[in-house]
This record gives sequence, structure tokens and C-alpha cells, in this order.
Amino acid sequence: MPRYKLTIEYNGKPYCGWQRQASDPSVQEAVETAVTGFSGETATLFGAGRTDAGVHATGQVAHLDLSREWDCGVVRDALNAHLRGEAVAILDVERVPDDFDARFSARKRHYLYRIFNRRPPPALLTGQVWWVSKPLAIDAMHHAAQRLVGTHDFNTFRSAHCQAKNPIRTLERLDIVKGPGDEIHIHAMAQSFLHNQIRSFAGTLKLVGEHRWSEEDLVAALKSRDRTRCGPVAPADGLYLTRIEYGTAPKRTLPPYPG
Amino acid sequence: MPRYKLTIEYNGKPYCGWQRQASDPSVQEAVETAVTGFSGETATLFGAGRTDAGVHATGQVAHLDLSREWDCGVVRDALNAHLRGEAVAILDVERVPDDFDARFSARKRHYLYRIFNRRPPPALLTGQVWWVSKPLAIDAMHHAAQRLVGTHDFNTFRSAHCQAKNPIRTLERLDIVKGPGDEIHIHAMAQSFLHNQIRSFAGTLKLVGEHRWSEEDLVAALKSRDRTRCGPVAPADGLYLTRIEYGTAPKRTLPPYPG
Repeated sequence: MPRYKLTIEYNGKPYCGWQRQASDPSVQEAVETAVTGFSGETATLFGAGRTDAGVHATGQVAHLDLSREWDCGVVRDALNAHLRGEAVAILDVERVPDDFDARFSARKRHYLYRIFNRRPPPALLTGQVWWVSKPLAIDAMHHAAQRLVGTHDFNTFRSAHCQAKNPIRTLERLDIVKGPGDEIHIHAMAQSFLHNQIRSFAGTLKLVGEHRWSEEDLVAALKSRDRTRCGPVAPADGLYLTRIEYGTAPKRTLPPYPG
Repeated sequence: MPRYKLTIEYNGKPYCGWQRQASDPSVQEAVETAVTGFSGETATLFGAGRTDAGVHATGQVAHLDLSREWDCGVVRDALNAHLRGEAVAILDVERVPDDFDARFSARKRHYLYRIFNRRPPPALLTGQVWWVSKPLAIDAMHHAAQRLVGTHDFNTFRSAHCQAKNPIRTLERLDIVKGPGDEIHIHAMAQSFLHNQIRSFAGTLKLVGEHRWSEEDLVAALKSRDRTRCGPVAPADGLYLTRIEYGTAPKRTLPPYPG
């Protein structure tokens, strides 16, 4: 069966997350329903990252198999037509080899965390940023964040529900930069992340930006490998899965719980 | 009574527009209710521009009188606290002289019109941009737009409901530029605008961007002073009142129907 790779944008707010659940609307279900709507087929979608409730994507990737060879542009347009009324858009469709796996072939995952840093609350970006009303020291946050880059046991910075057996990850990039307007952007990149890892980073780095934590406090929390030493986990609203990079790496060697 | 100038951001989607109406929620009503909530006073808000249903603002200005001298930061924070749940934020509060009038003292009004120009629909910017799926020629739009700059009878480009007696306006700026991502931004500036003038420009310039209209077609439509020669009026979703400039000009000399 021909395999297709979809690049997907969504607003996470109306969904219980990427993954299909029996009782609540999910992004996976919305796209699978659209696939059935246009092709008549029941297909399962495999996503690169299982984003949580409220988490957004501008570059989620998923694969699925269909029995027919379709023109990719036709698939994209038909899916978008069937997704009308959903907060999901198909940005791109490609034909890929049968051994392409959106999750296990992924080499790098890129996330963006958007902090909205001004005293008045957002009126236009509600649900799409984390509003922090007190001024944050961006340079201090960025400087401290570099202590997290590299290969570490990130047990401090993951959810109690994280199913990964191994909490060691290699964080390749964690940059805190001034974004447009009143935004502060956290750019994170790794082959894979632990559950809630970036939201844990964001919540903890906020304490550094407020000068309530020093860089050494952050390093001590990392070294403790103790989840109770993590700062408050930042809300889903600010988190975006922005890009998945694929390459020629051996497949099915990744840890089991990305995103 | 001390007079206060408010700078206001709002998402126009949930509102029937700026102006208070008996049956539907308006931005004016939301802010006036917040004023009563924090001060106990019933005050009338006078806005610089009466934005229509669905039109947004990042820099609307309004004035109101209160019986007390308040610290401006306290007023801003108290209003924002009382506006919780509304899509309205007070960005700034200033004390102004008694003869300051948000509407009649305004020297320049700045608007932004956001076109979202890509084939897939927006999943994250729904209601905040005008989605145009076919590629637009930005340079052709900008070049043609310069023929609208200056002092003209803009009868072609106004609503049938426009109450201005005089359709002559001086358009000081109409720039079409590439925005972030897939956006095209139309920046318009004048002392005042006719009702639906910018949305009429946006809808007509789209025809130029699609090469369905030439620059000469646009000029002919302007010169005709005939509303039926206007292109389709663009939706409210993409329009933002971004800034009002004040100066030392004589007051109450503006035409009566800005925005």
C-alpha cells in the first residue's frame, strides 16, 4: 500500500491532544475522519510526537497508508476540505517509502515555547502563549539554559506520567531569544524529549528570568534527578511542535516516548 | 472631572463592534462595565474609531472621565482584572487634559490588514486573517495602491451605510508588504477613513494581486466614484486598528465618520 507523509498544523486548544481517545476529540481522530471522508478508507495515522491537550503544532508529521496512488496535492486539498470546521490544516503531503515511519524515523524534533511577557494580559493570543506579567531577564534565562544542553539524566524535568524507561536524553539546543512584540521564544531541539520536558524547562527557566533561581539552582535541580525539584510546569498554551527532521538513521532505535 | 486616555487591544470576533448596542456585546460595553466594576462610577467611553463587528485592535484609543484622581497604573490593572473572560486588554492609561478627545483630537489613524496567502487554510490564525489561497503578486498590489494615495473622492471604496457627507479623504499611506510567514500586510494611514474603506481597498487590491485587474482598472474604479465598481469587500477578520496619533491640531475639524 502506498505510504503518505503528512505535515500538519493545528491549534491544540479544542483537542484532548494528538492521540485518539474514546471520549474526547483529538487531532488524530479529526484527520482520520477526514481521510475516510475523502477516500472511503479507514486508515490509522502515526504521528511523530504525541502532543498533550492544548499543545499546538505548526509542523507535526504523521504517516498513513492508503490503497490507492493519489496525487499528493489532491490528497492535501481534499483533506483540508474535509477538515473544515476543525482547527487542523494539512500543510503538505508527500509519497514516502514503505519503511518511512513518522515517529521512529525522526532524527530531530523542534519545539517552540512562546512566553508573552507584558503586564496587560493578551487579548488576541489567548490560549496560544503563556502570559507572564512580570519582566523576565532573557539573557539570564538563555545563559542558564546552556547548562541543560548536552546529554543528561533529565528525570527532574519530566512528568510523573512519563513512560520512558530511560530518562537520559541529549538536548541539542535550548535557546531563549526575544520574539516579536512582547514575546520571548524558547527554541528546543533534540532527537526526542521526555513527557513534559519542555514545559518543565519553561516553568523552571521563568524562575531564573525572575531572578528567583540562580543558574546554580538550575544545575543543582538537574543533578538531583528529583522531580520535586522542578519549577512549576508551564501551561500547554505556549508550546508548539514546529518541525521534525528526517534522515537516513537506522529506524526503531529511538526511546519510546517522544514529545 | 479628571480625564483618562485608554489604549486598548481587542479581538473583535466575539463582539458586534466597538460601539455599544442594546442587544449584542460590544467592546465599549465590556470596558464600561469594567470601569463601573472597579470605580463604582457609570462612565461613557469615547473611542477614536468605531470598528465594525469582527474588526480587531492593537491600539484603539478612548477617553473617559472619572470623578477621582487615580494612579494610571492602578486603573490599567484594575480594568484588566475586571475584563477577565473578555477578549479585551487595556494596554495603557494616561491622564490627559480636559480638551483631549479620543476621536476629534486624532491626527492620524493607522490600520493593518492581514492577508494569509497560502493554499492550506489557517489552523492557528482563524478569524484573525483573511485567507486567500491563490498566490498574490505583492509588488503589483503595492504599485497599484500608490495610485490611491493622496486626496481623492473615495466614494467607490466606501460602504453604502457610510454616513460621511463628504467622501473626499487624504490617504497618506497604503503600503503592501510581505509579512511574517505566509502573510501579506496592508498598512494604511490617514487622518480619517470612510466606512469600509480599508476593507474595500483590500478586496479590490486582491483582484490586482491575482492579475484579474490591472492598475488602470483600479484607477478607473477610483475615478468613477461609483460604489458598484468596487471589488468584493474583504472580511473583517483581517483588519486591525493599530495606532492613533495625536498632536496639537485644532479640534473638532475632522469629518464625522472615521474608522
